Amino acid sequence: MSGSVVLHVLDLVGVFVFGITGALVGVRKKLDVFGVLVLAFVTGLGGGFLRDVLLGATPPAALRDWVYLVVPVAAGLLTFFLHPGIGRVERLVNIFDAAGLALFCVTGALKALQYDLSPLSAVLLGTISGIGGGVIRDVLSGRVPVVLRSEIYAIPALLGAGIVVLAATLEYDALWVPFAGAMTCFAIRLVAIRRGWNAPLPRNP
Amino acid sequence: MSGSVVLHVLDLVGVFVFGITGALVGVRKKLDVFGVLVLAFVTGLGGGFLRDVLLGATPPAALRDWVYLVVPVAAGLLTFFLHPGIGRVERLVNIFDAAGLALFCVTGALKALQYDLSPLSAVLLGTISGIGGGVIRDVLSGRVPVVLRSEIYAIPALLGAGIVVLAATLEYDALWVPFAGAMTCFAIRLVAIRRGWNAPLPRNP
Amino acid sequence: MSGSVVLHVLDLVGVFVFGITGALVGVRKKLDVFGVLVLAFVTGLGGGFLRDVLLGATPPAALRDWVYLVVPVAAGLLTFFLHPGIGRVERLVNIFDAAGLALFCVTGALKALQYDLSPLSAVLLGTISGIGGGVIRDVLSGRVPVVLRSEIYAIPALLGAGIVVLAATLEYDALWVPFAGAMTCFAIRLVAIRRGWNAPLPRNP
Repeated sequence: MSGSVVLHVLDLVGVFVFGITGALVGVRKKLDVFGVLVLAFVTGLGGGFLRDVLLGATPPAALRDWVYLVVPVAAGLLTFFLHPGIGRVERLVNIFDAAGLALFCVTGALKALQYDLSPLSAVLLGTISGIGGGVIRDVLSGRVPVVLRSEIYAIPALLGAGIVVLAATLEYDALWVPFAGAMTCFAIRLVAIRRGWNAPLPRNP
Repeated sequence: MSGSVVLHVLDLVGVFVFGITGALVGVRKKLDVFGVLVLAFVTGLGGGFLRDVLLGATPPAALRDWVYLVVPVAAGLLTFFLHPGIGRVERLVNIFDAAGLALFCVTGALKALQYDLSPLSAVLLGTISGIGGGVIRDVLSGRVPVVLRSEIYAIPALLGAGIVVLAATLEYDALWVPFAGAMTCFAIRLVAIRRGWNAPLPRNP
Repeated sequence: MSGSVVLHVLDLVGVFVFGITGALVGVRKKLDVFGVLVLAFVTGLGGGFLRDVLLGATPPAALRDWVYLVVPVAAGLLTFFLHPGIGRVERLVNIFDAAGLALFCVTGALKALQYDLSPLSAVLLGTISGIGGGVIRDVLSGRVPVVLRSEIYAIPALLGAGIVVLAATLEYDALWVPFAGAMTCFAIRLVAIRRGWNAPLPRNP
């Protein structure tokens, strides 16, 4: 399995899990089936659209490959019919969101390197890709974006993107590197959610 | 009258009616004349900006043709001075919004085909163009985006875009096709508003 | 000092002051240090991203030049550690926001001219660049966008952009012109804030 296939698969899995988070938020907001599907769609594809538009890689990958269109719809329908009780939705949103963040920060950073961005810019673009879908989901559904709430969110994405960019800069391109980047981001984010880790708050002089 | 002229005119009419919806929302939110104009502008041009940026057709059409800049300003000023009582504003927003949705899903899909997108992607891009202006309007003015509320909204846009893309795929390019696509979308949307059609809501196990 | 260096410096100062406004809003919303940094980052770079994406100048300048990434982080950290009491934050947000608006409307308009946009479109793109960062900041942090509130906001940006575009159209390219455009916008905006100038509100028939 070549590197670009791995990247493609990780990207689609990211679309799927972000699609689930969008659909879960829609279910929680008691949207109808189409509202749920739209939110799954926008959340699943939003980060990638943002990434590709910023890279000038237009039309975005999702508009050139129909599989990208099927995946968030499947995520939305599955969630709509199989979601758990409303009370447990928020917890699932956080877990799937962490997975999407982890996958997109890695695929975004690697795609940025393919487009000859500098290492620092590639790390940033990966982070933006990871954060983007959740921000769009939260803004559209009237929630405070998760990246702004008191939790470790951007930092694990920067780390995950940083790992794959560092490896690429050292011309070390083993297939396990993207997985290591994504797992690092995912693990830190999950621990932060579970422990309720907070970063310092502003002092009030 | 050639096809591209028809497309241009339909696009400008779409900008005009979306501009009216933005201005009406501004009036309802009791914004001043500049706030109303900004909202008319952003709502009228937002969907087309999104469409052109996703297609890589930059700078967007609205920045290459000054007529696009005059139309939403005219829509905003007309609405500011001639709007009805606040009580009747929401109803008008819905009707003009349906017209804008109908026009933009068609022109967006046809422009996507000109940029060699696949039929499926063209339908999607048309739908995004149709939905985009309203989403931007609603997010900026603190409303739940209409596409997420319990109404048939994305479906008529998909149908309208689907009709023109299907005809183009069959190489049938009669001038009435865009009108048929727009009218189909508009009619379904209006009936949905009037009857209060709702799609299934998520069950709560 | 050549014109393009002036432009670059003004752009970076704009990123810095907008970054401060984002960080101040984050402090006021009691976000943690990472939330404050993210909001500084997005507010500082958002308007320029929007400008460059609309111009097709991708990847945006901020992704090609690492200085753009350091500046909003510095603005965010400085603000986080040195901000005044919460009670005085809103006033500072308005003043720095006025400075960012003034700088970005000028640099945005000049960059649009470099990309061969028409004078009218260049004025508009400058205005969009100036307004963009604040809109993104306010939408993400759940505030009504300042451009929609009852104050003179878009007009000074149009004037500032108009001055530099007019001078360029007349092929008068003295180094003081961008400063004159920015100062005009800044001064009008400050007076509007201080006097509480409001534009006409919609009548209610």
